[in-house]
Amino acid sequence: MGNGAHLDSDRHALQRLLDELGRLPGIGPKSAQRIAYHLLEADAEEARRLAQAILDVKRVVHFCPVCFSYATDELCEVCADAGRDRSQICVVAEPRDVTAIERTGAYHGLYHVLGGVISPMDKIGPEQLHVRELIARLADGEVREVILATNLDVEGETTATYLARAIKPLGVDVTRIASGLPIGGDLEYADEGSLARAMEARRGM
Amino acid sequence: MGNGAHLDSDRHALQRLLDELGRLPGIGPKSAQRIAYHLLEADAEEARRLAQAILDVKRVVHFCPVCFSYATDELCEVCADAGRDRSQICVVAEPRDVTAIERTGAYHGLYHVLGGVISPMDKIGPEQLHVRELIARLADGEVREVILATNLDVEGETTATYLARAIKPLGVDVTRIASGLPIGGDLEYADEGSLARAMEARRGM
Repeated sequence: MGNGAHLDSDRHALQRLLDELGRLPGIGPKSAQRIAYHLLEADAEEARRLAQAILDVKRVVHFCPVCFSYATDELCEVCADAGRDRSQICVVAEPRDVTAIERTGAYHGLYHVLGGVISPMDKIGPEQLHVRELIARLADGEVREVILATNLDVEGETTATYLARAIKPLGVDVTRIASGLPIGGDLEYADEGSLARAMEARRGM
Repeated sequence: MGNGAHLDSDRHALQRLLDELGRLPGIGPKSAQRIAYHLLEADAEEARRLAQAILDVKRVVHFCPVCFSYATDELCEVCADAGRDRSQICVVAEPRDVTAIERTGAYHGLYHVLGGVISPMDKIGPEQLHVRELIARLADGEVREVILATNLDVEGETTATYLARAIKPLGVDVTRIASGLPIGGDLEYADEGSLARAMEARRGM
C-alpha cells in the first residue's frame, strides 16, 4: 500500500466489484453482494480462475468469418466440421441462439448469425445485419434450404419475412421454425424439447 | 494460438467461463450463459474491469485484526473511525452482516465478527470462532454493552445464548436484537427498516 491514491483505490475495491457485478444481466444489488462475499470467502485460486476465464474468453473468442457465430479457431466449430450437412443453413439472430439449437442435438446443418434483427425503432435494417453475407453463401448452389430461426416476436417475424422474400427468388427452399415455442418466446430460454420439436415441424414460407 | 494444448484450452474458453460462473451463489446454468454472452458482447474494457475488480478484492481485502470484519487498511473502517461509540460491540456471525447493519445507519458502535456460529453438526464450537478475542476486548472496561446480532435461527440463538452466559459474569450488559426480523430469517437479506427496528428494540439477555 504505497501512496494515497493507491490506498484510496484499495479502500474501494469491494465497492468497485459490487458495481461491476451489478452491470451483469439479472444481477441486482443483493445478488451482487452475495457473489462478492462468496468471492471474498472463496480461496484465492477460485477467484483467480474466474477472472482468468473472463479475460480468456475476450482474448480468444472472435466472430467466425463465414457464419458470424463465435469461434476460437479460424472458423467456428460448426463451419469447421466436415460432418455437417452443407445443404442447410439455419439463420439466427445471435450466437447464443446457435448454442441453444446445438444443445437440442436435432440439427446437423450449418448456421448463419445475423447479429441482430430488423428493428426500425432502433434504426436496424438489413444493411446493419449480416444479410449480404448470407445471400453470398447461397450463390454456389450447395445450399438447398434456409431455415429461419429468428425469435417468434414482432422483430423476429419481420426479419424472417424480409429474408424469405429476399431468398426465395434464388431458388432455395425457405422454412420457418414452427411456433411450437410459446408466442413472444425467446429462443435462448426455450427448453430443449420444444426447440427440437419446433425445428422438426418447421414450415415452408 | 501456438501448440495443441494452448489451442485446446482456447477452444474451451467459453465452457470454462460457464463453469466458473456456475460456481457463484444463485447462478444456475441459464444465468451463467446469459452472463457469459453478455461479457462476449460487452466491450473488452468492461470485461477487463470486472476481472480486475475480482483480483483486486482478493489482493487488498483481509480480516481486521481487532473485529475480524473485512479491512483494506490495517484496521477496518469502523475500528479505525474515532467517531464510533466504543462502549458498544455488536457481535455478528459474518462480515456481510456488518455491511447489512451499517446500511441501516442506526448503529454507531463497534463490531465483532465471530466467523460463523456454533454448530455441533458441523463440528463448530466456540473454539472455532473468534470468541476468545471478543472476551479479550471486554477486559479494559471500556465496553458497557454487547449486542448479540447473530441470525434468529437455531444456530444463531444457540450462539447468542452461549455468549450471553460467557459475557454476563464480566459485568457487561448483554442484549439481543429483537425478533422484529422474521423468525428463521437471514440478517443479510433483511430490509433496512426491519433491521434498524430490530437493533433499536434489542432486549436484555
